[in-house]
Amino acid sequence: MAVVGLERKVKVAEVALRCLVCGLAALAAALVGTGSQTRTFFSLEKKARFTDMKALVFLVAAHAAAAGNSLLQLARCAAAAAMAARGSGNGGGSSGREAAVAWSVFSCDQAVAYVLMAVTAAALQSSVLGKRGQPQLQWMPICGLYGAFCRRVGEGLASAVAAGLASVLLAAVSAFNLFRLYGGRGKRSSGAGNGATTW
Amino acid sequence: MAVVGLERKVKVAEVALRCLVCGLAALAAALVGTGSQTRTFFSLEKKARFTDMKALVFLVAAHAAAAGNSLLQLARCAAAAAMAARGSGNGGGSSGREAAVAWSVFSCDQAVAYVLMAVTAAALQSSVLGKRGQPQLQWMPICGLYGAFCRRVGEGLASAVAAGLASVLLAAVSAFNLFRLYGGRGKRSSGAGNGATTW
Repeated sequence: MAVVGLERKVKVAEVALRCLVCGLAALAAALVGTGSQTRTFFSLEKKARFTDMKALVFLVAAHAAAAGNSLLQLARCAAAAAMAARGSGNGGGSSGREAAVAWSVFSCDQAVAYVLMAVTAAALQSSVLGKRGQPQLQWMPICGLYGAFCRRVGEGLASAVAAGLASVLLAAVSAFNLFRLYGGRGKRSSGAGNGATTW
Repeated sequence: MAVVGLERKVKVAEVALRCLVCGLAALAAALVGTGSQTRTFFSLEKKARFTDMKALVFLVAAHAAAAGNSLLQLARCAAAAAMAARGSGNGGGSSGREAAVAWSVFSCDQAVAYVLMAVTAAALQSSVLGKRGQPQLQWMPICGLYGAFCRRVGEGLASAVAAGLASVLLAAVSAFNLFRLYGGRGKRSSGAGNGATTW
């Protein structure tokens, strides 16, 4: 098997990062999504749930979607590896199809990375407001009332931040997988060969 | 001049996107940073400024930094173009230095894109809270009181979203510029040539 060392390293990193994103995103969605706390104020029962804050709803939805997407991509990686192991004699398939797959994986991973970063930032912002309030606007902190719920959301957010960082690395890996197809070592001499790639 | 068409297109897109990011980020920082509104409630004077919300402070700081960074990068592009025009005979410099520059530009652009997306999401979240409040938490909306200030922040946020999208495209362009250096057309036959690149 004439597999280039760099290529193998990148494949291993990709699978590891996808597992990491899948696990951490699922954990974040589960921690935030299942947390709730009920308290009684003067015989009035009030319940804190993640649906009370739009940002947490987005967080749960985005991380659940990211976890599902990672699972699908892992299945794709496994299928590609199985195909490569079985039919390694036929040269790895057409490069046009390879580029199309790389483009779709790249777009997907970029979208996941940016969306996870954005929803995590928005949820962190909401949580800081919940923890500290905003005295200038007469918004009171609520974590004094719902301590257990706030701790649970905090754990979920830590997991969400880790999932976001992993997805950023993953986006870089899939950018590498895509753009090296447009590789240009010696592009000044044999650059005309790139004319076949469509832009 | 044997410049490849794809390479020239990418260069033009890079410069255009950098100009766009610079202008839009500076506009966003200026709109949000200079907005303020003073109102009098029962002889008590109150002033709304962006410093009342942490998320807006981050937004202004990040967009000002992104605009400055874009200016520096534009200067780098101009210097590289001038060098290429003057000394085009010497083959474009060593490829090791080219890779180092591409790595630093790539890291910078990725960081800018993620930071702009994150601070914009956080500021949007804060602004939605400011506009609608959060009745479950007894947080009252404030845009009824400070309408002009809220409109100004809204314009700034629109500009910030546009700057964020431009910086995302720019990050993809600089990923292209970096990773095609590790290009692998025909990597299965002549892949050993990639061994010289350090990972």
